[in-house]
Amino acid sequence: MVTVDTLFTNAIVLTMDSEMNIYEPGAVAVQGNMISAVGLEEDILQKYSSAQRVDCQNKVLMPGLINAHTHVPMTLLRGLADDLRLDVWLMGYMMPVEREFVSPEFVDLGTRLACAEMIRGGVTAFADMYYYEDAVARATAQVGMRAVCSQTVLKFPSPDAQSYEESLNAAREFIIRWKGHPLITPSIAPHAPFTCTDEILRAASQLAVEFDVPLLTHIAETSFEVENSRIEHGMPVVPYVKKQNLFDAKVLAAHCVHIDEGEMRTMQRAGASVAHNPSSNVKLASGIANVKRMLELGLNVGIGTDGTASNNDLDMFEEIRLAAFMAKVSSQDPTAVPASTALLMATRMGAKALFIDDITGSIDSGKHADLILVEIRKLNNTPRFHRDPEGVYAQLVYASKASDVSDVMIDGQWLMRDRKLLTLNEEDLFTESQVYAQKIDEFLIAREESVISKLIAIGGASQEESFEVQVKVKVEALDSILNALQKTEIKTLRKRHYKEYDSYFSFDDAKQGLIRYREDHFIGEDGDIYNVRSRLTHIGLAEREQFAEKVLLSRSRYIAPATQSLRFYREYFKPQKEHEIEKDRLRFLIEYQNTEFFINLDEVKKPELGYFLEIKSRTWSRKDAEQKSMIALELLDYLDAAHGETIYDDYIKMLS
Amino acid sequence: MVTVDTLFTNAIVLTMDSEMNIYEPGAVAVQGNMISAVGLEEDILQKYSSAQRVDCQNKVLMPGLINAHTHVPMTLLRGLADDLRLDVWLMGYMMPVEREFVSPEFVDLGTRLACAEMIRGGVTAFADMYYYEDAVARATAQVGMRAVCSQTVLKFPSPDAQSYEESLNAAREFIIRWKGHPLITPSIAPHAPFTCTDEILRAASQLAVEFDVPLLTHIAETSFEVENSRIEHGMPVVPYVKKQNLFDAKVLAAHCVHIDEGEMRTMQRAGASVAHNPSSNVKLASGIANVKRMLELGLNVGIGTDGTASNNDLDMFEEIRLAAFMAKVSSQDPTAVPASTALLMATRMGAKALFIDDITGSIDSGKHADLILVEIRKLNNTPRFHRDPEGVYAQLVYASKASDVSDVMIDGQWLMRDRKLLTLNEEDLFTESQVYAQKIDEFLIAREESVISKLIAIGGASQEESFEVQVKVKVEALDSILNALQKTEIKTLRKRHYKEYDSYFSFDDAKQGLIRYREDHFIGEDGDIYNVRSRLTHIGLAEREQFAEKVLLSRSRYIAPATQSLRFYREYFKPQKEHEIEKDRLRFLIEYQNTEFFINLDEVKKPELGYFLEIKSRTWSRKDAEQKSMIALELLDYLDAAHGETIYDDYIKMLS
Repeated sequence: MVTVDTLFTNAIVLTMDSEMNIYEPGAVAVQGNMISAVGLEEDILQKYSSAQRVDCQNKVLMPGLINAHTHVPMTLLRGLADDLRLDVWLMGYMMPVEREFVSPEFVDLGTRLACAEMIRGGVTAFADMYYYEDAVARATAQVGMRAVCSQTVLKFPSPDAQSYEESLNAAREFIIRWKGHPLITPSIAPHAPFTCTDEILRAASQLAVEFDVPLLTHIAETSFEVENSRIEHGMPVVPYVKKQNLFDAKVLAAHCVHIDEGEMRTMQRAGASVAHNPSSNVKLASGIANVKRMLELGLNVGIGTDGTASNNDLDMFEEIRLAAFMAKVSSQDPTAVPASTALLMATRMGAKALFIDDITGSIDSGKHADLILVEIRKLNNTPRFHRDPEGVYAQLVYASKASDVSDVMIDGQWLMRDRKLLTLNEEDLFTESQVYAQKIDEFLIAREESVISKLIAIGGASQEESFEVQVKVKVEALDSILNALQKTEIKTLRKRHYKEYDSYFSFDDAKQGLIRYREDHFIGEDGDIYNVRSRLTHIGLAEREQFAEKVLLSRSRYIAPATQSLRFYREYFKPQKEHEIEKDRLRFLIEYQNTEFFINLDEVKKPELGYFLEIKSRTWSRKDAEQKSMIALELLDYLDAAHGETIYDDYIKMLS
Repeated sequence: MVTVDTLFTNAIVLTMDSEMNIYEPGAVAVQGNMISAVGLEEDILQKYSSAQRVDCQNKVLMPGLINAHTHVPMTLLRGLADDLRLDVWLMGYMMPVEREFVSPEFVDLGTRLACAEMIRGGVTAFADMYYYEDAVARATAQVGMRAVCSQTVLKFPSPDAQSYEESLNAAREFIIRWKGHPLITPSIAPHAPFTCTDEILRAASQLAVEFDVPLLTHIAETSFEVENSRIEHGMPVVPYVKKQNLFDAKVLAAHCVHIDEGEMRTMQRAGASVAHNPSSNVKLASGIANVKRMLELGLNVGIGTDGTASNNDLDMFEEIRLAAFMAKVSSQDPTAVPASTALLMATRMGAKALFIDDITGSIDSGKHADLILVEIRKLNNTPRFHRDPEGVYAQLVYASKASDVSDVMIDGQWLMRDRKLLTLNEEDLFTESQVYAQKIDEFLIAREESVISKLIAIGGASQEESFEVQVKVKVEALDSILNALQKTEIKTLRKRHYKEYDSYFSFDDAKQGLIRYREDHFIGEDGDIYNVRSRLTHIGLAEREQFAEKVLLSRSRYIAPATQSLRFYREYFKPQKEHEIEKDRLRFLIEYQNTEFFINLDEVKKPELGYFLEIKSRTWSRKDAEQKSMIALELLDYLDAAHGETIYDDYIKMLS
C-alpha cells in the first residue's frame, strides 16, 4: 500500500488522456504536486491510501481548463466600451486609457482579479500577453496559478517602453528572471505582424529560440489585416511571418480567423499552435476561424477568452461551448467539433498549444496535479443519461456553467474549496478595482466633456495658432476672375487644383462646435488625381468675427491629420447630424502689393451653391490684420469682384 | 402617502420602458400583482410606504426575461443525443423516445424541471409548444410562472393524438379551458408548414382568430425546408403560409433563419413576430437568422432557448449574449444589435412577441409585477464603469450569468428569494427526473443492442418473409444469354433496366450482419432515368444456405423503404466499414415450364467483377423450393450458361 498526500475518490474521472479514458467511479492519487495514479476507484484503493481522502460526491474530476489567449490585466477595463468597431474601441478607448493608467500596480491588480475569476471558472493555466509582464507573472505565481507569461514588443511606444529596443531588452531580462519557475513559463510576444517590423519579428524569434521559450502573437484576426499584408508584403500573413523566421520559435498564434488551408499546413508543419477566441472574434465581428479544417489538418488548436475588454469575461465554459457552436454553424455541419473535441481543445490540446503538455492538460500519472471538480447534478444539467459514453462531455460543454466548478487544485495546491477562494481576497478585489474604475471614469468623462478634448484624446491633434483675414464673395462665374489674375500687379507663386469632399459633424449642444472631415483630391494638369489627403478640423462657434467691412478674422482651429476613416470619426464622435459639401477648388498663392494671399476659386457642387471667390492671408497681429484686410479689399476690387455679395459664413452655415 | 404591499429600494432599476429609463438609485412600488410606480428612490419614497421593504443592495432590478420559444417537457431529454445532424437527432432519437415516453406525467415533470431552471435564470414568462399542453399549463400555473402554452397539431399521429382532427379538437378544448387565466395564455401550434397540411394551417388560423389567441409555429428553420417549399409550393415558406391565411392570426414564428427581406416585410405588415433561437440554430448548424435586418424593418423579434434537447439549457443570459454575438458576426458589424437592443428583445420586445406586452415585459406602472434582481457585483462583472449609461446593459448582456439572478417575483408572488426556489422542490426534481432518464437509457440501450432493432426503431422496417431459390453464375458476356432468352420456351412477361448503386455497412461485430442501402435508377428505352427508388435491407449472416447443387435458398430479410438519405443511415448506424458496388442490371420476369422466374443479367462495374446471370424464384415450401431449384438448373442449361462458375456469395462478399 502506497501512502499519498491526497486521494480523490467517488468521482466521474475524465482523464482527457490519449485514450480519453473515463473512470466511474474513479479515483486519483496525488503526491506532492504530482499525479501518482488514476483509474477505477476499486483499483486505486487497492494500491493507495491517504490521510486526506477527498470524497468527490460523484462530481466530475477533470484536468483544469487551459485559457490559451488572454490579457489578464485588462479585466480592469471590462465593460468600459462595448458594441464598437475594433478601431474605435481600440484607438478611441483602450489605447488612450492604457496610455494613462497602465502601470505595474494596475497590472498586478488586474492579474489578481482575472485569476480570481478564472479559478472560480475552473481555469488552471493561461497564456497571457501584456505590458509589465513581470508584474503579471509575479501576481500569478503568488496566487498559485500556472501561466505562460509573455512580454509584449511593439514598434510603437507602449505603456512600459519608449522603444522596441527597450521592450526587447525587457523581454530578455524577463525571460532570464522567470525561466525554470515551477508555475510560470516566460515568453516573448511580438504583438502582431502589423504592429511590428521585420526586425522585431526576427529578433523576437531569435530570443525565443535562444531560451527555448514560446513566442506568442496575434495572426490574421481581421480580413483587413490580410488585405493589408497582401498589399504591403505581396502575401498573406502566415507566409510573411514565416519569411521573418518566426516559426523557428515555438509559436502560439492567437485568432487565425483569416488564414487559408496553405497557411494552416505551414503552421502545422512548423509545429505552431492556434489560440481560437470565438467570443472575441464574433463580438468584434472579425469572423469565425475554420477550426474544423485546422483540426482535420492536424493543427493544434487551443481555446482562449481573449481579454475581458472584448468578451467580456474569462469564462472558459462559454468559450468551449461557443467553439463547438461556431465550428458547426460555419461549416454547416452539426457533427463538427463534437463536445469531446471541444473539451480536449480546452485541456490536453490547450496545454500542447502552450507547449506545457508535458506538465499539464490531462490526468496522467507523472503530470502535475492541476485538477478541478465540476458539479453536474444541477438543474441546468438534469437528468443524466448513461447510454452514450460521450454524453458526459456533452453535459460539460453544452450545459455546465463556470459556476458549477466547486474545487480547484493547481500544482498540488488547493486554490478553491467548495467555491471559496483560498489565495485571494474577493472583497479587496472588488474595492481596489472600483477605485481604478472610478479614476478611469473621471478621466474619460473629463475627456468627453467636449468635442475638442475627444479630438485631442485620440492623438495627433494640435492647436494651430493660425489667424487669418478672409474675404469671400459670391460670383457669377470664375472665368473673369481667372482672367483678372493674369493682370500685371498679381504675381502667381503657386497654383493647385483640388476636389474637396467635406463632411461636417454637428452636435445638439451647439457650443461644441463642428468637426470637419476633409478629403482633398489633388488634380494634376492632365485632370487625374495624383494625391489624396485627409484632414480633421474642429471649428469653434465663435471663432470668427467680422473684422472690417467685408473682412473676417478667423481664430485658431484644432487640426489633425485624419489618420482614421470617416466612418471611424463618425462612430467615435457620434454626431447628431452630418452634412456633406463637395467643391472644385482652384487655389492660387499670389503676391499683391508685396503681400502673400491665397485665392480660392470655388465651385460648390453639392449642394449647388454656385461660384465663390475667397481671399485669405495669414496674420500675426491686429495691426498686420488691419493692413492686410485693406489690401485684400483692394485686391477684390482689382479682380473686378467687389460688387459680389459678401459671404460671412462657412459653406456649412449657408445650408441651415 | 400611499401604502403598498412591497417597496423595492436601493436598486439599479432598468425599466426597459419605451424611453429605456434607468433609475439609480431607483425604487419600485408593487400592490397586489401590479406595479404601482417606478422612479428614482427619492421620488418614490415621498409618495409610497410599505411594511415590506426590499433593500435591493444595489442589484439590478429589471423586468423578468421572456423566453420566446421552448418545449419545456423536453428538459427530460437534455443531453440524450448530441452532435448529430437534425434528421438523425430527430428521427433516430427524439421521435422514437417521445413515441415511447411522452405522457401527461412526463410532461408535468419536464415542465416543473424547466420552470425551476428558468426561474433560477431570471425567466418569468415563456412560450411553449408541445404535446399534452394541458399538463404543461397546469404545472406552470401551479409553479406560478407566466406562459403562452400552445397545443401542437401535426399531420402525423403524435404522442397525444392519433389524427390531426383529434389534436385540433384537443386544442379547441384546451383554449376554452385556459382562456382568461391570470398566468396562462392558451394558444395553438400547427407544428411547421412541412409537418402540416394546407387544411391544418387554415383550421389552426381560424381557431386562433375565433378565440383571439396567439398561433405558434416553426418557420424556415433550415435551408432544406425552404428548398422543399419552393419545389412543392413554388414559393418560399412565408408566402406559402400567408396563402393559407395563417397571418389572419397573431403569429409567433420560431427560427425564421432562412427568410428573405420580402418575407420579413410580409411578416412585419401582418403583425407577426419572430422567436430567434441562436443556440439551437448554431448547434444544429441551421444557420444564423438575419436579426439585424429584421429589426431594421420593424419586425418584432423575441429570443428563445428552444428545447433543451437542442441547446442544452434554458439559459436566457447565454441566449441574449449569443443573439448579440451572432448579429455582429453575421453582418460583419460589431455595432449590430448592441447590448440594450439584445436585452430589449428578451424583455419588452419579447413580451410583444408573445402578444402579452400589455401585461409584462417592462417596469411600467399598470403592468404586472414580473421582476427579477440580478447581482452585478460579481468577479465576472467587476469593475463597473458609469461613464456610458449603456454600460449596465453591456454588463448584463456580455458578463452576467443566469446564476447571478438572486430573486424572482412573478405576478406579485415571490418564486425565488436569495437563490432559494419557493414553489418547487429541487431534490424531488433531481430524483424524479433521474428515474425517467434511467428508463429512457434502458429503452435505448436495448434498442441499440442490435442493428436490426435500430432499424426497426426508426420505423417503416418490416420483416419480409420472402424465401427465394437462387442460382448465380459468372458468364463471359451477356449477349448470348440475351439471345437465348428469345428462345421459344421462354415467355418474357416484363423487362426492366436498372443502374443499381449499393452501399454496404458492416460492423466489427460480424453477427450484426450487414445493412445495404440500394438506390435503383430505372432506365427507360431512351436510356434516360425515369425513376429512382431507395431501399434499405438488413442482410443477416446466416441467411443463405446451399440448397441443392448450385442453388441457394435465401431466407427472410428486413426491408425498409429508405425514406432518409444514405448520409442519415451512415450517421445513425455508425458502421465500422462501408463498401460500394455499382452494377447495370437487366431484370426479366419470365415464365419457363409454367414457373415464374426473375432473370438478372448483371454487369458489375464497381469494382469490375464482370458479368453475371442470376435466376431467382420466390418459394413458400421446401417441396416447392426443391421443384423450383430443379427447373432453375434446367433453365440455366437452356440458357447455355451451365458451364459458368457458380457464385454462392453476395457481390459484397466477393470483395473480401
